[in-house]
Amino acid sequence: MGERCIPLHIGDTYRLPPAAARDALRDAVKKEIDSTRYFKYTHPAGMPSLLEALVKKLKRDNGIEASPANLQVTCGATHALCAVAQTVLNPGDEVIVLCPHWPLIRGIVESIGGKVVDASFGGAVADPEATLAGLINENTKAVYFANPNNPDGRLLDRAECEKLYRFCRRHDLLIWSDEAYEHIVFDGREKQSMGALDNGSDSPRVLSVFTFSKSFGMAGMRVGYVVGPPSQMEYVRRVSTHQVYDLCELNQAAAAACLSQADETYDHFLKEQRDEYQRARDLLHSAFPDCPLSPGGAYLFVPFESREAAWKAMVAWLEEGVSSAPGEAFGGLHPHCLRLCFTAVPYPRLEEAVEIIRRVGVPS
Amino acid sequence: MGERCIPLHIGDTYRLPPAAARDALRDAVKKEIDSTRYFKYTHPAGMPSLLEALVKKLKRDNGIEASPANLQVTCGATHALCAVAQTVLNPGDEVIVLCPHWPLIRGIVESIGGKVVDASFGGAVADPEATLAGLINENTKAVYFANPNNPDGRLLDRAECEKLYRFCRRHDLLIWSDEAYEHIVFDGREKQSMGALDNGSDSPRVLSVFTFSKSFGMAGMRVGYVVGPPSQMEYVRRVSTHQVYDLCELNQAAAAACLSQADETYDHFLKEQRDEYQRARDLLHSAFPDCPLSPGGAYLFVPFESREAAWKAMVAWLEEGVSSAPGEAFGGLHPHCLRLCFTAVPYPRLEEAVEIIRRVGVPS
Repeated sequence: MGERCIPLHIGDTYRLPPAAARDALRDAVKKEIDSTRYFKYTHPAGMPSLLEALVKKLKRDNGIEASPANLQVTCGATHALCAVAQTVLNPGDEVIVLCPHWPLIRGIVESIGGKVVDASFGGAVADPEATLAGLINENTKAVYFANPNNPDGRLLDRAECEKLYRFCRRHDLLIWSDEAYEHIVFDGREKQSMGALDNGSDSPRVLSVFTFSKSFGMAGMRVGYVVGPPSQMEYVRRVSTHQVYDLCELNQAAAAACLSQADETYDHFLKEQRDEYQRARDLLHSAFPDCPLSPGGAYLFVPFESREAAWKAMVAWLEEGVSSAPGEAFGGLHPHCLRLCFTAVPYPRLEEAVEIIRRVGVPS
Repeated sequence: MGERCIPLHIGDTYRLPPAAARDALRDAVKKEIDSTRYFKYTHPAGMPSLLEALVKKLKRDNGIEASPANLQVTCGATHALCAVAQTVLNPGDEVIVLCPHWPLIRGIVESIGGKVVDASFGGAVADPEATLAGLINENTKAVYFANPNNPDGRLLDRAECEKLYRFCRRHDLLIWSDEAYEHIVFDGREKQSMGALDNGSDSPRVLSVFTFSKSFGMAGMRVGYVVGPPSQMEYVRRVSTHQVYDLCELNQAAAAACLSQADETYDHFLKEQRDEYQRARDLLHSAFPDCPLSPGGAYLFVPFESREAAWKAMVAWLEEGVSSAPGEAFGGLHPHCLRLCFTAVPYPRLEEAVEIIRRVGVPS
């Protein structure tokens, strides 16, 4: 549909990266484009100055104690999870995935011969022993979830994180903690990182995945990273090296620039973003007053009476120029839902979308 | 060793990418850095204008008839081969790898549960039926080789390609043709692409891998690609999407610019590069008059009397500031060799390396 479509089906943003990142790209190109600086291979683990900056960021934003040996820079969070999955899983191994879930995790696990076991996110948070213990067998290696979650924005508080952590420790499972939306939390909420619970542990088990795509509006630069126990990261590094060898240093320089801003500039960028996205969330929510109000992330996950009703709405809105994503993409438990992104287009365009959705309504 | 080391162990270049590629990066940054143009997600298959340019390039340079549906842009040739391997292989499947071989292919195959079966490249070229047929069992899925080869620069002529192609067709094996060094051939030789033999075939079987890293001195940009039968490429695309999602469009724009140069500018760049590298090859060869003269690629693969002799030389040269790569990295059949890259440093620096090697000699 081209320009006429208001694309709420994909997790993108209308916002620019921080000025520091754009200046870093501008400067790098101005100063170095006629040298081989950014055209050569770099370190497969990641550019050393980025790794150093990540160590500080992880301590400050996530409470995670890391060193460069705990880190692997990746081609976005997708590659981060792909490298983790290929490192951890043998064919036949199982991963418990809390649903609804980020769409690609299923294919990532299955394409290397692993098995996804769907579990209710709500149940797992309320009572992991009752919800998850029965799903564990000798092939179960890890529990995966996103926090804040994609598609429903669920955000775990400290007590919920600790409960899940203790459960995984008790059953000797790894935790794959996807924190792509770490800085997008609303209504003054705090974000707890699972990796912080691993600090000083005698049996660390958290592989955390982060990215510059959402926090800094830099999806196109493809810079993500994994942090985890050195014993695991040694193999994540080998796997990543055999998947992509290394990553573009120009893009890594732009990412590093985000982290080298003055604290108050950094905080201001993220606060402004949170405020803008919260206002956008509230706007989109005005079209779905019965839908839970996402506490974080970039989406509303709207329930309908049935799968059929959801598909009818998706098609009807699409015909009028508003795209959304079907619930089936997010695990088998939510075919009656649609996901709509509130960060993809600027406020006035989102207003148009809301108007269309209100006008079309839910066809019966 | 830092600056003091003359790094001949890695396959890098001192040359700059074409002016067109650098101008494209400069222009993109100048015009678009304050828009979201290059910061958003792009097409997982690759930027459409790059795909179009690749179709023309493949026809012109490689004689391969392709369409965008046959193509997948990747994070360098490493990721291209990783995506191919993960698409084609199930655990336990086997790949016959012609030796000596590019070091990473072994880990790529093994990390997804595949098995590498080493075979002599020379034997396979001379008589594939006698050399390879005995290695085939019901798990054998493909034959992998690089042409020109890394590490020894072996270049297959048309008759040799056809012989190998017929053999693979007879035994219903896929061909993974790694053509990373496609434009680096010496002494006026012609380069034959395996994929051209697939044109119009009723059972196409060639998955060809290319990259901008070597032809255009753009390893740091991480742009490679796979071309193959649509039936395979549909799955290569899905696998790639689950490995890295998409690739940086800024880098793809630089790659596309290489291909949109006027024919004579394009040809001149590649000819100048070939001439420079040939002169460098001859210089390095002057230190090893008994070593075969590589017909293509970026390396000499120097044989010694024994593994021990090779290691002694490697250590002795390294102590004087010249690094080389041990033969074991290139498959089990060549522990008595060392690989030295002649494209990594400019001519005067390579002269220094040759002087050091001559002075130190081969310790007994």
